[in-house]
Amino acid sequence: MLDLLRFDENGLIPAIAQQHDTGEVLMLAWMNRDSIEETLESGNVCYWSRSRARLWRKGETSGQTQKLIELRFDCDADTLLLMVDQKGVACHTGRRSCFYAAMRDGQVVEIAEPEIDPAALYG
Amino acid sequence: MLDLLRFDENGLIPAIAQQHDTGEVLMLAWMNRDSIEETLESGNVCYWSRSRARLWRKGETSGQTQKLIELRFDCDADTLLLMVDQKGVACHTGRRSCFYAAMRDGQVVEIAEPEIDPAALYG
Repeated sequence: MLDLLRFDENGLIPAIAQQHDTGEVLMLAWMNRDSIEETLESGNVCYWSRSRARLWRKGETSGQTQKLIELRFDCDADTLLLMVDQKGVACHTGRRSCFYAAMRDGQVVEIAEPEIDPAALYG
Repeated sequence: MLDLLRFDENGLIPAIAQQHDTGEVLMLAWMNRDSIEETLESGNVCYWSRSRARLWRKGETSGQTQKLIELRFDCDADTLLLMVDQKGVACHTGRRSCFYAAMRDGQVVEIAEPEIDPAALYG
């Protein structure tokens, strides 16, 4: 499967995480070959952190892990869709989803509140 | 809003398209500033085609347009989530979603069939 995927010039591929039962889109992050292999082996989602330039085992600090339910990829084999079971919240702001900002009537509005104080996750 | 977004070194930002009522993730494509402005003005999703290096008005050839319901973006402001109403199918293979390949029991399997013959879309 890994040989089918088309990684970009940095060896990365974008991965969308979607809660498997509710359909909520939680986040988008990046994976490399190593992080995909680790994810498939461990069953817990591991990304590649571009800012820290290292493997990022989702929840390693916050405890908010993502269990992989199914890995899917698209017709061009250049994007992953991870069906996951998200423990707690996906977003570092304490919100369930990272996509909490919306354009409504020409204004940016927040459509979700934090469920957990970030200080409790990272403090 | 556009000034809040963080485009990459090529002036692009990834955009996930999700069917607004069913939650199905349809595709991921890329947008630049111009394509976002056109999308907000017209109400029909316009991407930036990296392969053709031009604006890509989704459905311009196939008729399978995407009506924008709501534009959202994430906590890092570097990914868009487009809540859309997809007419027909999103994928050039004639499938509703581009994410029709899944890893199951170590094998790649197709989990969706074409709903329309691609020749009818592009022929």
